[in-house]
Amino acid sequence: MTKEIDRRTLLAISTLLATGAAFPAAADDKPTGDPRGAIMEIPPDAPKVAMLIHPKMVAIDLIGPMSVFNIMRFNVQLVWKDKTPVTTELGIPIQATHTFEECPSDLDVLFVAGGLMGTIDCMNDPDVLAFLADRGERAKWVTSVCTGGLLIGAAGLLKGYDATANWTVTDLLPLLGARHVDKRVVRDRNRMTGAGATAGLDFALELSAEMKGEEAARRVQLILEYAPAPPFSNGTPKQAGPQRVAEMRKRRTGMDRQARAAAELAGKRLGISRG
Amino acid sequence: MTKEIDRRTLLAISTLLATGAAFPAAADDKPTGDPRGAIMEIPPDAPKVAMLIHPKMVAIDLIGPMSVFNIMRFNVQLVWKDKTPVTTELGIPIQATHTFEECPSDLDVLFVAGGLMGTIDCMNDPDVLAFLADRGERAKWVTSVCTGGLLIGAAGLLKGYDATANWTVTDLLPLLGARHVDKRVVRDRNRMTGAGATAGLDFALELSAEMKGEEAARRVQLILEYAPAPPFSNGTPKQAGPQRVAEMRKRRTGMDRQARAAAELAGKRLGISRG
Repeated sequence: MTKEIDRRTLLAISTLLATGAAFPAAADDKPTGDPRGAIMEIPPDAPKVAMLIHPKMVAIDLIGPMSVFNIMRFNVQLVWKDKTPVTTELGIPIQATHTFEECPSDLDVLFVAGGLMGTIDCMNDPDVLAFLADRGERAKWVTSVCTGGLLIGAAGLLKGYDATANWTVTDLLPLLGARHVDKRVVRDRNRMTGAGATAGLDFALELSAEMKGEEAARRVQLILEYAPAPPFSNGTPKQAGPQRVAEMRKRRTGMDRQARAAAELAGKRLGISRG
Repeated sequence: MTKEIDRRTLLAISTLLATGAAFPAAADDKPTGDPRGAIMEIPPDAPKVAMLIHPKMVAIDLIGPMSVFNIMRFNVQLVWKDKTPVTTELGIPIQATHTFEECPSDLDVLFVAGGLMGTIDCMNDPDVLAFLADRGERAKWVTSVCTGGLLIGAAGLLKGYDATANWTVTDLLPLLGARHVDKRVVRDRNRMTGAGATAGLDFALELSAEMKGEEAARRVQLILEYAPAPPFSNGTPKQAGPQRVAEMRKRRTGMDRQARAAAELAGKRLGISRG
C-alpha cells in the first residue's frame, strides 16, 4: 500500500471501522426496537483488549476470538506498527485500529494471533518484541493462539509458564522458557494460550468466562451456535496418526527450520538455558 | 465509502487481495524450500467457489469456510454487487473480488454467509435474488451457513429441500418451501446448509470431503487443528435450555419480526403454499 492511500483513505476506512466496532455484538444479537443497529457504545468500563495483527497472519486466528470478544462487548483494538492493512493468508487485508504508540499502556488482555511465517518475522523484529514485552508486563492477561504462542514467548512472556501453541511448533516452546502442556487451552496464572487456529474459539470462551463469568460466556456460545461437530476425528497429531503427521511434516521442513532458528535466537537473547 | 475512495484505492486493495489470494493454502502450510510463500497458482482445474458477501454480514460465517476452501486450493471468489468493501459486524471491511457480472456463470459451489440484518436486506433485494437464482440453478453445489440459509431460500433454491440455518430462524425455512432438519450440517442432493456461525467449519470440511475425498478434508482439519473443546455445552437451544433461549429471544423480537416478514414476502413471491 502506498503512502497516498494511507493518507487519503484510511480516515474513511477508520470511520467504517469505528462504526462497525460500535455495532452491538453479533449482527444477530441486536436489541428489540433497534434492529438496524443504531450505534451502541462499548461500555466505558469494558475490558481493553489489544489484538496484535501482523502481515501473513492467519485470519481465523484473529476472527475466532474477536467474534467472541465482540459479542462480550469488550473494547477490542487491532494493533500493529502502522495502519497499512496487513494481508492475511486469505488475501483479506485487515487494518489496525491502533498503532503501538496509540495502544493503551495498561491492558486487560494482550492477544497475539498466529500464522507461522508472520510470527517468525515478528520474532526477529525488535519493535514488535519491545511492544509485546512492555504491554505484556502490565496486562492482566497475556494470551495467544496458534503460533502466536511462539511470539509472546520470544518477547519473554512465557518464561517459567505452562503454555501451548500450534501442534507443529510446541516442541519449540521450551527454547523460550515455557513448558508445553498438551491441552487445547492452557492456563497458567495470567497466561492463557491456545492450540492451533480453530482453538481460538475455545480459548476466547474460556477467557471470557474467567473475566465475566460462565453465564456471559455461555450466552456467546449460543449466539455463535458453537456446538461443533467435525465430520472426522483428525484435528490433533494423535487423532491424525503418525503417517498423516509425517506426510505433513515433510512438506514444511524449510518452515520448521526457520521457526527453530528464530526460537533459538530468541531464547539466547532471553538468556534461557536449556534443561 | 465514497466514490473517490472507490476509484483511488480499490485498485491497490485489489492488488493486495490478488497477491493474498495466491498465497498457498494456510500460511502454516507452505511447501519446503519456498517458505515465504512465493506466489503459487491455484490449480487451473480448481473448483470455482463463489462466496456471497454482503453489508452487515457476520465475519466468521465467511472466514470459517473460506479458511477451509483456501487450504483445499479451491478457486475462491468473494462476490457482491460492486467492489465497495462491505462492513462486517466486527468492523472489518471485506471487498469483493468479483462483481455479480464478473462471477463465472457455471460454479462448482455457490455459498451464502449469514448475519441476519444483512440477510434480510438481501432477501428484499431483486438484484441479489436474481443473481443467486441464476447461479444457483446451474451450480454443482448450493450452500449456506447461518442465516444465509434464509437468503438462498428466498431465492427459491430450497424449495422441496431439507435444510438448516441459524437456530433463531429455522422456523422460517418452511415459509420458503424447505423442511428444517435439526442437524449441524444438512445435505439434501446438491444442497448443503449449515447451522449458525461456527457451523461453517463443519460444513466446509464436509463439503470438501464430498468434493475431493475424505483424506483431503482430514488434512485440512489437521492444519486448522480442528479438535474443538468448548468449555461449556451451550451451543444449541437444547443445550442452553429454555430459560437462556427465552432470555435471548426477548432481546431480538424486533429482528425476528423483520425476518419473518421478509420470509413471508419471499414465500409469496415463490408461490409457496404453507402446509
